[in-house]
Amino acid sequence: MIGIFDSGIGGLTVVKEVFRQLPDYQIVYFGDTARTPYGSKSEETITKYALQDAQFLIEQGAKIIIVACHTASAVAAETLKKHLHVPVFEVVTPAINKALAVTKKKRLGIIGTTATIASGIYQQRLKATNRDIAIITQACPLFVPLVEERWTKKPETKMIAKRYLYSMTLKQIDTLVLACTHYPLMRDVIQQKIGRRVKLVDPAAEVVAEVKRFLEAQPEIEKSLVQGEAHKFFVSDITDKTRQSAKDWLERPVRLEKHLLE
Amino acid sequence: MIGIFDSGIGGLTVVKEVFRQLPDYQIVYFGDTARTPYGSKSEETITKYALQDAQFLIEQGAKIIIVACHTASAVAAETLKKHLHVPVFEVVTPAINKALAVTKKKRLGIIGTTATIASGIYQQRLKATNRDIAIITQACPLFVPLVEERWTKKPETKMIAKRYLYSMTLKQIDTLVLACTHYPLMRDVIQQKIGRRVKLVDPAAEVVAEVKRFLEAQPEIEKSLVQGEAHKFFVSDITDKTRQSAKDWLERPVRLEKHLLE
Repeated sequence: MIGIFDSGIGGLTVVKEVFRQLPDYQIVYFGDTARTPYGSKSEETITKYALQDAQFLIEQGAKIIIVACHTASAVAAETLKKHLHVPVFEVVTPAINKALAVTKKKRLGIIGTTATIASGIYQQRLKATNRDIAIITQACPLFVPLVEERWTKKPETKMIAKRYLYSMTLKQIDTLVLACTHYPLMRDVIQQKIGRRVKLVDPAAEVVAEVKRFLEAQPEIEKSLVQGEAHKFFVSDITDKTRQSAKDWLERPVRLEKHLLE
Repeated sequence: MIGIFDSGIGGLTVVKEVFRQLPDYQIVYFGDTARTPYGSKSEETITKYALQDAQFLIEQGAKIIIVACHTASAVAAETLKKHLHVPVFEVVTPAINKALAVTKKKRLGIIGTTATIASGIYQQRLKATNRDIAIITQACPLFVPLVEERWTKKPETKMIAKRYLYSMTLKQIDTLVLACTHYPLMRDVIQQKIGRRVKLVDPAAEVVAEVKRFLEAQPEIEKSLVQGEAHKFFVSDITDKTRQSAKDWLERPVRLEKHLLE
């Protein structure tokens, strides 16, 4: 099984990509809805939660882990790689690789949660590539609650997007990384406010493409992941809205099971 | 000590009222910032968290508990009263009493989180009073993140407030209960959009007034609460923003100590 976790159900955007790119694989998902969101919390707390999330997936039979949550990828991926005995994929590295391949002007924008942007992970990783890239970041903390309220088409959301993105438009970026699972769900507004010429990078598609390449090179692991059983979706808290959003975002019916961590 | 808990640091609005109305009393506060917010979570999860929060305060020496969080008050107060061996005060009852005393047209508005409004607690309690009161409720889930982003004066916030409150203005309420700890922090915008003639009820002031009456009638308990030691403020997660908001909202310096539950 491929284990995928997120701070909530936004990570279902990654599940959708697995369905698209790796349709034969069985998935076990965990969304930490009882403690969501992670993006406004401290590194210490996020790391602790991420370790618990991943360990639960391994107990459920996951043979590889995808960290769908950008905040956890930015803050906790190194700790996860050190402590877990299965391959760990996070969304930052493939997003950077794609952005570097796409940008022509060498001017990248990154938008994410407060914790993701404050981590400085994108600057740090891009510096390590030794390439001459300008990077402009912007935390957009209101985007997650706006998506969760299904306000993606409302004029207030457009105004807020304009406020967050305006300074980036002045800085002439040509590529923008949507560094939060929820942001692809408001892709239209973001594209409209950042301008049609800016290319958007959705890390969900990129991380799954990376996993696909990895699996093709590792036939041994690959076999253990394809079992033909039903996918499993666990969350730590369930409300009517969780159920409705899960169905809408995944664009198919989904049975959520409750599992408490701690 | 008076124990006060909230899902985060919004409950400091209740602490401020204790400073104002009961300046001699020692406070122990717990804000569950590692799991905030409660308002979008299920009744089961909120009740579990509220019990843990209150039990921690009792371990710290609290002799009475104030549930500053509306969501926990609406969903978990009865369970807390049944399980704890100290007096428990919640914010719904005093808010209702004040609103009933204030309204002339017998038309009340209630705004709160999704969980508070979905609980139906206000309708239920008002029905129990057997009084002929019309009650109009509205969940305003974006107000908490807007306050936390310090966007209370932004035009986007005014537009969102107008969208949430417009239907209430048509329904001719004359009294509006701010049924979430964060809402008094955006009182000006709410007053502007609901109209100057509508009276706003801040439950923080009301619950502390109720506690004051209780203490005056119980000199035995009163003595054990005044100890002259420093107030204690615990939170389950600390970021720079937590520190800054705590200081701003309390309008005095405050030393936050980290304490993890579970």
